[in-house]
Amino acid sequence: MRRHNVATVLRQVHVHGAVSRAELTSVTGLSRSTIMALVASLVQARLVAEDVPDRRTGAGRPSHVVRPRPESAYVLGASVDVAWVRVAAVGLGGAVLARHDYRLGEERARPASVAGRLARALGRLAAEVPDGARAVGVGVGVPGVVRRADGHVELAPNLGWRDAPFGALLAERLDPAVPLRVANDGDVGAVAEHVRGAGREVRSMVYLAGGVGVGGGVVVDGAMLHGTAGYAGEVGHMVVNPDGRPCRCGSVGCLETEIGEEALLRAAGRRPDGGGEALAEVLAAAAAGETRARDGVARVAHWLARGVATLVNVLNPELVVLGGPLGGIFLAAEDLVRRDVARFALDPSWPRTRLELPVLGGDSVLLGAAELAFDGLLGDPLGAVRTGFPAPGAALSSAATSAGPWPG
Amino acid sequence: MRRHNVATVLRQVHVHGAVSRAELTSVTGLSRSTIMALVASLVQARLVAEDVPDRRTGAGRPSHVVRPRPESAYVLGASVDVAWVRVAAVGLGGAVLARHDYRLGEERARPASVAGRLARALGRLAAEVPDGARAVGVGVGVPGVVRRADGHVELAPNLGWRDAPFGALLAERLDPAVPLRVANDGDVGAVAEHVRGAGREVRSMVYLAGGVGVGGGVVVDGAMLHGTAGYAGEVGHMVVNPDGRPCRCGSVGCLETEIGEEALLRAAGRRPDGGGEALAEVLAAAAAGETRARDGVARVAHWLARGVATLVNVLNPELVVLGGPLGGIFLAAEDLVRRDVARFALDPSWPRTRLELPVLGGDSVLLGAAELAFDGLLGDPLGAVRTGFPAPGAALSSAATSAGPWPG
Repeated sequence: MRRHNVATVLRQVHVHGAVSRAELTSVTGLSRSTIMALVASLVQARLVAEDVPDRRTGAGRPSHVVRPRPESAYVLGASVDVAWVRVAAVGLGGAVLARHDYRLGEERARPASVAGRLARALGRLAAEVPDGARAVGVGVGVPGVVRRADGHVELAPNLGWRDAPFGALLAERLDPAVPLRVANDGDVGAVAEHVRGAGREVRSMVYLAGGVGVGGGVVVDGAMLHGTAGYAGEVGHMVVNPDGRPCRCGSVGCLETEIGEEALLRAAGRRPDGGGEALAEVLAAAAAGETRARDGVARVAHWLARGVATLVNVLNPELVVLGGPLGGIFLAAEDLVRRDVARFALDPSWPRTRLELPVLGGDSVLLGAAELAFDGLLGDPLGAVRTGFPAPGAALSSAATSAGPWPG
Repeated sequence: MRRHNVATVLRQVHVHGAVSRAELTSVTGLSRSTIMALVASLVQARLVAEDVPDRRTGAGRPSHVVRPRPESAYVLGASVDVAWVRVAAVGLGGAVLARHDYRLGEERARPASVAGRLARALGRLAAEVPDGARAVGVGVGVPGVVRRADGHVELAPNLGWRDAPFGALLAERLDPAVPLRVANDGDVGAVAEHVRGAGREVRSMVYLAGGVGVGGGVVVDGAMLHGTAGYAGEVGHMVVNPDGRPCRCGSVGCLETEIGEEALLRAAGRRPDGGGEALAEVLAAAAAGETRARDGVARVAHWLARGVATLVNVLNPELVVLGGPLGGIFLAAEDLVRRDVARFALDPSWPRTRLELPVLGGDSVLLGAAELAFDGLLGDPLGAVRTGFPAPGAALSSAATSAGPWPG
């Protein structure tokens, strides 16, 4: 019970930043003396600090304000995409302490190479955090179907991985004392938008994001939808087009083959392998009025609307967030998308659904991976401290920096 | 806390029937003396009875067996379909005490007529239960999008209802002391299969059923998926066919237009309005080898597989249950369905999904409506008793039987 209450208080502080004791009392329903004791134990564990506000606001004693200490505990988060890897050290409370992005080349097809370079990048990053900060977790989002227990990647079509022991490959290159979590990129993107983005306070939402691949994550009653084996949320592989193209997942006519990056490039008369730059060019050309580009955007907008409508009808979410390049397509053709969703979605559900861009921009997956990495600490703050974190920074960086120079 | 524990014990007894005190101790994690006291309070409330088994099995004292008293508390459940209305009185523990089915004619289009006839049927049924039994709830499943708070039917395309205050129309014809719940038929069908059917012990499942309309319900982590407004689970309105027919929901190319009763009849070269009898004839003809019927079944099986694959990819359920006439189509073309789901669903998810028929046959919706009606009692058993149930049977039947003769 006490563990649960300590965890609740630390999560409040982590998610909301500075929170007064009075707010903690009100949100948790616990007594003032209980909150005082819980906060004291977190102060002693160096996870939070308490300030007394300078100014009195209104009548009565000002309430102590509790804030996270990002310099005390941090995580390493990473987003592995087809073209880019992004890594960040994120402090308790969500502040980014350091970050680095690097391009992924031909080594993307080799899980061991990706793991090796990622471990080195994480090690360098760990060396950049303030002295005394303790790493409490590593979280990685990958564009594939991931077994959450051990980060085994069952299938990552757009990396060309199948049955890849990515979690194990990465774990053996990292300090074993720091818990590692690997998850589907769409799932962690949804987590980030739910905790810190467009979906704060939202109980039921879908995050749909797409570049080369199209993925997503679903939040139901405030919690991630995992499904029976952890593979839920593969919204890019809804079966939408009987006349569609083969998908890298092995199926045909998936939503991904209609709204992914290659689909837009093809529909706009471009080479499908042009990547993010080509996609930006098409959106610019469409904005400038080029017919082929506009037609391509309209076509993708239509299919996007069909996908959103199905999600609305099945899940009745309060919010759908369109992330990655899909956000750009939405911006370029918002009227078309809304018109077609209204056509295909059920009357009672759609008017109650918000359709929005991510608040975290291109960082949803990266920051969501970091949130995932905080789960251990936030689940049992004092237990995690008692068990002992690895030594500051050095523990991660010594093992990894010795393996090679700064990547990229 | 005590209320929660009493509720847990009664739910165990309601769902599993005869349960020993030892099993209750083990399942709830409560102490033997606590279980003894909780059971005693339920015995005093006349909701359960306790027996000492005759024979000793193995060593030690035999544990007292607690069983529900269906003659003490019962609910009235109803399933409203396009062609049939089914009503049942169901006792605590799930035993059907009495039931009646009647055909729905042209009055189906008039919510007030449907409510009037249903109220009379429920009243007659209430008069048939054993003397002394107390009605503790009424539950109704309807084929439409329902606002759960008050049973307002936003849209029931196949009844031709839009914005129909069905809950209010029914409530004013029933004893106001008995709580009334109206819900989507697919949702309550899923509840029944989850609690008493194919999905017992399953945490994550989809119930997909279709006659004229195609609906369903989704269970996530052991609980119904409601969505933000209660409209989730409209799996019949996934957008699947760009070249599809207009759907009664206002959209085009919904799954319902491809796998509903009319789609099969049309694909088999029959008149689409032949109803359940025509559908049975097509399945029989297909079994006998008639080419048109076989082609029709194959076509529907293919679209069914596309729908199931999308649900598997988005929800990663442990179990998909195919109810209503869809079950017949599945039986007639199981190999085709499984082959095509395997083609369209993600490798890692599909091999972990069971695809099955409902255990409750055609009664999933009826029995699920009854389960819904038990929610009040099972949520606060002693509170419900303290508040006082309506007088035995008579309370419901007197108001309603006076309104007319036995329907049908």
